[in-house]
Amino acid sequence: MNDRFLRACRREPTDRTPVWFMRQAGRYQSEYRALRARHSMLELCRTPELCAQVTLLPVEQLGVDAAILFADIMLPLIGLGVPFDIVEGTGPVIGEPIRTDARVDALRPLEPESDLGFVLEAIRLIRGEARVPLIGFAGAPFTVASYLIEGRGSRDLPHTKAMLHGAPALWDRLMSRLTDATIAYLQAQVTAGVQAVQLFDSWVGALAPCDYALAVMPHMQRLFGALAALGVPVIHFGTGTAGLLPLMARSGGDVIGVDWRIRLSDAWARIGDAGIQGNLDPWMLLAPFEVAAEAAREILADAAGRPGHIFNLGHGVLPQTPPDHLRRLVELVHKHTQAPPGRP
Amino acid sequence: MNDRFLRACRREPTDRTPVWFMRQAGRYQSEYRALRARHSMLELCRTPELCAQVTLLPVEQLGVDAAILFADIMLPLIGLGVPFDIVEGTGPVIGEPIRTDARVDALRPLEPESDLGFVLEAIRLIRGEARVPLIGFAGAPFTVASYLIEGRGSRDLPHTKAMLHGAPALWDRLMSRLTDATIAYLQAQVTAGVQAVQLFDSWVGALAPCDYALAVMPHMQRLFGALAALGVPVIHFGTGTAGLLPLMARSGGDVIGVDWRIRLSDAWARIGDAGIQGNLDPWMLLAPFEVAAEAAREILADAAGRPGHIFNLGHGVLPQTPPDHLRRLVELVHKHTQAPPGRP
Repeated sequence: MNDRFLRACRREPTDRTPVWFMRQAGRYQSEYRALRARHSMLELCRTPELCAQVTLLPVEQLGVDAAILFADIMLPLIGLGVPFDIVEGTGPVIGEPIRTDARVDALRPLEPESDLGFVLEAIRLIRGEARVPLIGFAGAPFTVASYLIEGRGSRDLPHTKAMLHGAPALWDRLMSRLTDATIAYLQAQVTAGVQAVQLFDSWVGALAPCDYALAVMPHMQRLFGALAALGVPVIHFGTGTAGLLPLMARSGGDVIGVDWRIRLSDAWARIGDAGIQGNLDPWMLLAPFEVAAEAAREILADAAGRPGHIFNLGHGVLPQTPPDHLRRLVELVHKHTQAPPGRP
Repeated sequence: MNDRFLRACRREPTDRTPVWFMRQAGRYQSEYRALRARHSMLELCRTPELCAQVTLLPVEQLGVDAAILFADIMLPLIGLGVPFDIVEGTGPVIGEPIRTDARVDALRPLEPESDLGFVLEAIRLIRGEARVPLIGFAGAPFTVASYLIEGRGSRDLPHTKAMLHGAPALWDRLMSRLTDATIAYLQAQVTAGVQAVQLFDSWVGALAPCDYALAVMPHMQRLFGALAALGVPVIHFGTGTAGLLPLMARSGGDVIGVDWRIRLSDAWARIGDAGIQGNLDPWMLLAPFEVAAEAAREILADAAGRPGHIFNLGHGVLPQTPPDHLRRLVELVHKHTQAPPGRP
């Protein structure tokens, strides 16, 4: 078993810097597009054999050091009793956004075994085959709340901020329920076999630090407290978070995932005592390969001399990305960080 | 003349913290909406009497310490020979985006007196009436380039990054021309009477620091070098820039404008030797007033003890903002920062 990803999560020395990519299973792959021509996104998630196939394909193709469960951060909504769809080009869409006391109180507790058994079955299948560690994941409560409240992805999160500012008790009730669901979901994933988990707080970067501290951090601290008992490394990821990094690190996480909008060493100094994951701009991979290669070498130089760096993009792989660029990038990261003979 | 805004720009002590708002003339005002029912945005800009009226109205209504010229960052495109429109709810739209050598080379040099005489005439009218300093402004070259290349506002700037990464010589030629135009435009504004200028690099937060350093900073340094000769303070503003602040400060500006996604004192520490403008989340003003009031008091406490803070929002006033919240916010900032008797 290739364990350099898990070693880096624990900030132990590694033989090479580990690398994987958010959305490493996705539309940039012709095989994925062929599957999606026959199955919806949710069908792929709900069919353990297909889910395992999709999860493992990029590991073979790219040579990455970790697999990440193929799933969607909206899946727990099935258990909460909130109908949703995933619309091509838009993302998750919730027909009736959740904005009232009655709607929040009607959310059901998540029961992972019965609600999301297909995810757990997929995890068991993948673990039977994978030769790299498997990462499970969930959306962080803030980001899931923002989808529930807005009804879809949104740049400014107007309704989310309206609830957070105008109805703080309701907001806290919603966040508490989502925190409970996230804990239950990730516990079940770990029991089924994932060896690390990542929390995607993708939209939290819309918040001012004072709002994060008041309305998000207490829930995240409870969440990370519960996850610590699971005994696997936890990665805490968000985008647009350069100003929030000290608070995110205080919330918790063995590794903080950062996007490309801050220099890696700058981010790491702000994070303090944790590992770091990131942070190449995925748009660079659409340019001639040397553009991404040069930026990747800078990131590696910037991270050098301190264990605990996991190379990744700053956000998911874009559909237009040439697969060969990803393959060459993995090779570059491994070659560039290969320890001289005699060192671990 | 109320000069506390200009004193703060020079980091001199002030009797109260000065305050103004980006987009303080806009749709949140019933008077503005009434004018816009009869005139397009561009008509208001092109008619000096209307422009002066719109510019001065919020000064009287809100009691802010500065007026900002009512204009649009796209206006110089008139001189460059690029047709555009401003579409309600979308913003500026350019029918034929500029993505080729031929299109870049066809851009005309800006001649402010003949191309934008109406702006200069409006400035002279406003200066005749205003009892607070008048701020002129321009879009920064990167942000204007991104509109030219994308054709409209864009979250990810795919075509802009494609040119910047894939055709760096073309990118630099475009940035050089826009830098020339920006210098000429702001020189003419200062000659006509503006007492400070703000550069809006609104979308620069999409860039990785290494891209900013390579593709934007050299042009910005030339721009700020030229503006220094004008003898008025320059404010350098962007959003989503928490990770770019050290580089933005190195590019130039007497005052750096920051959005709400970073704590003010944290931003100021990253900026170093300059003033700071910001940084209340404009969405907070849609909540009960006490939410914005509490956040404003935190910002003021965070900025205390060091001259050079100009209170502002982190981005423009939203159309849904209750005008009374803005008026009360100005009052709060002034009361909260009033120096004890006997101090300046």
